[in-house]
Amino acid sequence: MILINGREENHLSARDRGLQFGDGIFETMAVHGGRALCLQRHLKRLAGGCARLAIALPERAVLEEECARVSAGAARAVLKLIVTRGTGGRGYAPAEGAEPTRILARYPWPQYAAELHRNGVRVRVCETRLGRNTRLAGIKHLNRLEQVLARMEADFRQCHEGLMLDDRDNVIEGIMSNVFVYRRGRLCTPDLSECGVAGIMRELVLETSKEVTGFDAEIGRLGIPDLLAADECFLSNSLIGIWPISAIEETSLRVGSVAQTLRKHLVEHGIIASD
Amino acid sequence: MILINGREENHLSARDRGLQFGDGIFETMAVHGGRALCLQRHLKRLAGGCARLAIALPERAVLEEECARVSAGAARAVLKLIVTRGTGGRGYAPAEGAEPTRILARYPWPQYAAELHRNGVRVRVCETRLGRNTRLAGIKHLNRLEQVLARMEADFRQCHEGLMLDDRDNVIEGIMSNVFVYRRGRLCTPDLSECGVAGIMRELVLETSKEVTGFDAEIGRLGIPDLLAADECFLSNSLIGIWPISAIEETSLRVGSVAQTLRKHLVEHGIIASD
Repeated sequence: MILINGREENHLSARDRGLQFGDGIFETMAVHGGRALCLQRHLKRLAGGCARLAIALPERAVLEEECARVSAGAARAVLKLIVTRGTGGRGYAPAEGAEPTRILARYPWPQYAAELHRNGVRVRVCETRLGRNTRLAGIKHLNRLEQVLARMEADFRQCHEGLMLDDRDNVIEGIMSNVFVYRRGRLCTPDLSECGVAGIMRELVLETSKEVTGFDAEIGRLGIPDLLAADECFLSNSLIGIWPISAIEETSLRVGSVAQTLRKHLVEHGIIASD
Repeated sequence: MILINGREENHLSARDRGLQFGDGIFETMAVHGGRALCLQRHLKRLAGGCARLAIALPERAVLEEECARVSAGAARAVLKLIVTRGTGGRGYAPAEGAEPTRILARYPWPQYAAELHRNGVRVRVCETRLGRNTRLAGIKHLNRLEQVLARMEADFRQCHEGLMLDDRDNVIEGIMSNVFVYRRGRLCTPDLSECGVAGIMRELVLETSKEVTGFDAEIGRLGIPDLLAADECFLSNSLIGIWPISAIEETSLRVGSVAQTLRKHLVEHGIIASD
């Protein structure tokens, strides 16, 4: 089911700036028991992204109602919400007074095997790098060619995620996830001030780590050697919740208790669904 | 008029990867006397972009026929041709065997005043920078948020184009054009191996400069001080042809004969239309 500006439709204007320039942002939410999880957090991030790109924000009540409509009746599903700057002419300049376009679509829940969050996942290091741009960093915008190219090089029969680096060899994120490294009582996730997407699950781990694990979570600079030297590493996003990393390329990593403790907490609080 | 996969339609699937990820490329062509100028060069560049992004290239004869259909009967117009990776599911991984989407649209010719190519244009320096990524550099792809943000900060009532720099203060291009600098018998345009769009008109100037002006055109590294110290600077793209730069911010530049000589040559060879 797809809802475009509140109407059940599968097609949108070819003049939409989302298509023409990737001029929009999106949210990907887990739907459980007919409702989107962490909806308010997602809508808050959406508002932040719209503000940074100067895209008019659709009314919150409208977004809430449409998210509820698309989620209704789905035991488990994925809800993708796109907001674009709306339709326009040929050039880069936005049309004056253009209304943003809302596109909500429901997708099947990806059937990740339950052992992935218990036993961990293998990741590879992508050759495709992330360009740095402070104006766009952190925003879940529609310019996602870097992720597409990275995804195409990572053979997901051999691994479950690809790590993406910037041009300075900093690990920034997974193709579809954020990264955490735990070592000696310190939990750290990459700084996203120059590139990367600031995920909702990353935000939740940063907020709750101290209370849940006893360890402060901080933002810092991490390279592949830091991951290889870690006591444990894990990935986060709104669909997978938390996945421990069991191997980076050919090097095995320990699947430890920090990731499990965090995941248990998120499940108990209804933030991610149990299997 | 819009043609989507050969049919006159205004709407395309909301599942198209052009919308979902900016997963596609485009060409912008001048239409004069019912036909697209430099069509073969544009189709060649399109093929190169598709190859680099591993997007299946639509058949050349099909593209030629559709460009002809959309251009037919237009004395002057703009033809924008988009090719996306086609429709897909929610994730970054392309669907196997997906057919690319072809979107051709005709737009009104922008009525640039004739004095712009005679007297030159004022440009400003954009605060929005270009991220560097060798995998995407040079390609006219659909991830154009940097240009959108730059265009929104440049008040085109005060100027006609914005110059875009990378994070190392290299001048890379204009928001919608390429840049050339002439000084002491040397014509230079920025290296686009890390960011920027390699324009068709830039390619033509590089190819013909020696023959037309007597000066070799080369690719190099340029900063704003180089532009300010130049004997003349100019912009190029497929619609404007050649525009001399008459001022950068508050500093006036000399409008010289190199840009005029090149423009005259391009007009005489039917590469750009005279006014």
